[in-house]
Amino acid sequence: MAKEITNREENYSQWYNDIVRKADLAENSAVRGCMVIKPYGFAIWENMKAELDRMFKETGHQNAYFPLLVPKSLFEAEEKNAEGFAKECAVVTHYRLENDPDNEGKLRVDPNAKLEEELIIRPTSEAIIWNTYKNWIQSYRDLPILINQWANVMRWEMRTRPFLRTSEFLWQEGHTAHATKEEAVEEAAMIHEVYTRFAEDYMAMPVIKGHKSESERFAGADDTLTIEALMQDGKALQAGTSHFLGQNFAKAFDVKYLNSQNKEEYVWATSWGVSTRLVGGLIMTHSDDDGLVLPPRLAPIQVVIVPIPKPNPEIMEVADKIAIELKGKGIRVKVDRDDKKRPGFKFAEYEMKGIPVRIGIGKRDLEKGLVEIARRDTKEKESIALELCVDHVSGLMDIIQNNLLERAIQFRTDRTTTVDSFDEFKKVLEENQGFIYAHWDGTAETEEKIKTETKASIRCIPVDAKDEDGVCVYSGKPSRRRVLFAKAY
Amino acid sequence: MAKEITNREENYSQWYNDIVRKADLAENSAVRGCMVIKPYGFAIWENMKAELDRMFKETGHQNAYFPLLVPKSLFEAEEKNAEGFAKECAVVTHYRLENDPDNEGKLRVDPNAKLEEELIIRPTSEAIIWNTYKNWIQSYRDLPILINQWANVMRWEMRTRPFLRTSEFLWQEGHTAHATKEEAVEEAAMIHEVYTRFAEDYMAMPVIKGHKSESERFAGADDTLTIEALMQDGKALQAGTSHFLGQNFAKAFDVKYLNSQNKEEYVWATSWGVSTRLVGGLIMTHSDDDGLVLPPRLAPIQVVIVPIPKPNPEIMEVADKIAIELKGKGIRVKVDRDDKKRPGFKFAEYEMKGIPVRIGIGKRDLEKGLVEIARRDTKEKESIALELCVDHVSGLMDIIQNNLLERAIQFRTDRTTTVDSFDEFKKVLEENQGFIYAHWDGTAETEEKIKTETKASIRCIPVDAKDEDGVCVYSGKPSRRRVLFAKAY
Repeated sequence: MAKEITNREENYSQWYNDIVRKADLAENSAVRGCMVIKPYGFAIWENMKAELDRMFKETGHQNAYFPLLVPKSLFEAEEKNAEGFAKECAVVTHYRLENDPDNEGKLRVDPNAKLEEELIIRPTSEAIIWNTYKNWIQSYRDLPILINQWANVMRWEMRTRPFLRTSEFLWQEGHTAHATKEEAVEEAAMIHEVYTRFAEDYMAMPVIKGHKSESERFAGADDTLTIEALMQDGKALQAGTSHFLGQNFAKAFDVKYLNSQNKEEYVWATSWGVSTRLVGGLIMTHSDDDGLVLPPRLAPIQVVIVPIPKPNPEIMEVADKIAIELKGKGIRVKVDRDDKKRPGFKFAEYEMKGIPVRIGIGKRDLEKGLVEIARRDTKEKESIALELCVDHVSGLMDIIQNNLLERAIQFRTDRTTTVDSFDEFKKVLEENQGFIYAHWDGTAETEEKIKTETKASIRCIPVDAKDEDGVCVYSGKPSRRRVLFAKAY
Repeated sequence: MAKEITNREENYSQWYNDIVRKADLAENSAVRGCMVIKPYGFAIWENMKAELDRMFKETGHQNAYFPLLVPKSLFEAEEKNAEGFAKECAVVTHYRLENDPDNEGKLRVDPNAKLEEELIIRPTSEAIIWNTYKNWIQSYRDLPILINQWANVMRWEMRTRPFLRTSEFLWQEGHTAHATKEEAVEEAAMIHEVYTRFAEDYMAMPVIKGHKSESERFAGADDTLTIEALMQDGKALQAGTSHFLGQNFAKAFDVKYLNSQNKEEYVWATSWGVSTRLVGGLIMTHSDDDGLVLPPRLAPIQVVIVPIPKPNPEIMEVADKIAIELKGKGIRVKVDRDDKKRPGFKFAEYEMKGIPVRIGIGKRDLEKGLVEIARRDTKEKESIALELCVDHVSGLMDIIQNNLLERAIQFRTDRTTTVDSFDEFKKVLEENQGFIYAHWDGTAETEEKIKTETKASIRCIPVDAKDEDGVCVYSGKPSRRRVLFAKAY
């Protein structure tokens, strides 16, 4: 039975790990910090990828592919970026193995195959990409370049958790080049909006949009836009970032263009990414003590049809007919044909996997012309007339999607506090956690001190923050708007 | 103008490189042997990927993702496989960089961050995957496992060419686990057929299906099935392989299952893959001295509409209307809105890029109710009535697709020779190249000697080879069937 997961109340972190394992999403691998993404977990990522890819293409971007390995000399060219990632770099130093003379049947690194220059496995691809763009850009006619890449990256993390923080992860990274600052700033903001739409409309995960403080920015960026979501344990998840890179990479790689007045200028840049971390965010936004809960738009299976107590020709005929009609409406359906497991076992299993709707077809119900519909989000069950089933279930897709979003918004509202003193600030963190809106004096020192004392960081300076005079909860110095604090993943 | 590519006759290899560059498919990167796949080249790969992915899913496979890095101890577990790839392995030995004390602003590998065990960048994933499957398989009920992975792999090649042979490449690798030998053999054969269908129906690239000789097998396989295509220079391209791995990996990783009689047995395996090499095969199968030629089913843009001599409102209204109607039929259309370049320049450009159909809309033609349709494959142009344009062009998609396949089959027929003596064998290689059917005595020695003397290798033992008694062209020993020889990429 599937009931073996830890309660959230008891141990949230264990609950998360249990869901990842029991819903068959991922597992740890033989390589420290790297996970195996299992088929069911990968299918969620594939659905995310398909929607995001469509959104990127609709906004004029094209996909391309750049090398996995970055020569050290390129990697270190943009110093802030290099410094930001240096401590997490996996380094390739050799290109060959040989038979180990001391160890029959084993291999060792061939000492004669040492690389002249070490190669870094990309932690992010600005360096290799800007070194390439250098040759693509001569004049303003070559701009903008609007490219995205779906790739694996490697950051040697010390503490890892499936999806949320792994040494290798999958992501997309957009890298754009523009003639003007305005255009680059606009691009970063537009992608910020794409990420917001994706989080809210597909993941049903409400987010706060804002700018990172200077100390939380991407290494090498002049501005980092972020979407921040609130998880059920009251901690924030940075779910996607879009960076205005200024001319930093253009200067590091000497990428200039001739403008329409025939004057040489440095190119303006953005980069932006979301990763398999989103799967972690999806899990933690909606799931409960019975397992995963998935929004219909991203669920690999949206509807499962279960014969009760087991398959027989009459029931299966009805099941297949419903399945065909639902598929005709573009719904992803599975018909359960297993004749060994009991219905109770199956129900728990499908609940664990977060399938949004279950249709139970029993012999006695069928005689009355009824089927049973169970919603994963609310756990509600209802008997409905067979002939209404397809329309009802297909209507449920949007209803469940919206309910999950509304529920998550309500949760966030309940866990968002506006505070005016540091005592209050600390009290909220102790009792309730969640998002905290507080005044901040704008200095990195205060930010650092608050973080050290409370472990809460500035998640963002919200884009829709109202101008409001106040004083910093920590320093008492003047502040012009509230910023968003929380403990974070 | 785009006419700057080398003729095939003059220098085939340079012609290939010119097409890759001029059609904007890929370029060399700063990392030895690794290419940048540019948006247009990547769009071809994306189309290939979409069709293959659909075919794999339709045959019951699911996608998953396994780590990029393989610990050395796992990598060496299956000795033949390890030996086969050892000389091409990129090795990660360190996980951190630090500031170089001797070199302000530069980084160096942190000597204190040496890994206890070296990690290999996957050249193929059998090792990491079978080490994972070990934990997934207990009983026959856990079988079969039918998984595919889309990933990057790294093989440190000494001589590289864009798409055809690069140190890093993109591919899919299927890895399946089965209870019986028969089932695994069947799986390998079924995928072999999927690859054949893809090559012929989508790439319009005819292939010979067969088994590899023992010395040409995948390292660690008991049987390798291959599809072999003939390129325009008379050399063969191994385009996809499907391996029956026997119990070799199950034994190396101790993967056993309890059968229905409760008896422990080793699991049977297959693996299979195609890569970005297919893009190279596509280029070399169809393209000509004016540039790329693409089969409609894989062309990123299937139809381009060019206003002549340049856009004006009346012409663009017609162009947009045609575009909308073609899109409605699922055709990928581009409307050229550029008002600077001359039509001649554009035509050459679109020919270079291999766009299957060009619709030219000129003012005078339009007055007569005509548009001009140009086919990339035959270079034929015809004026047709505006109202017939959409139907005509949409019909051309299959006509061009089929013509390319037929042309390639005809080319292969012309360049396939059946020989009965080694003199003839050598003569064909000198004069004509291409595929050679010849008797072979079945020994690795003879195979090796022929390869050393002529550079031609056994491409495959065709699955549909007729039983036919004969004598080996090299040794004169008896042979029961002809095998396929060629020089190869």
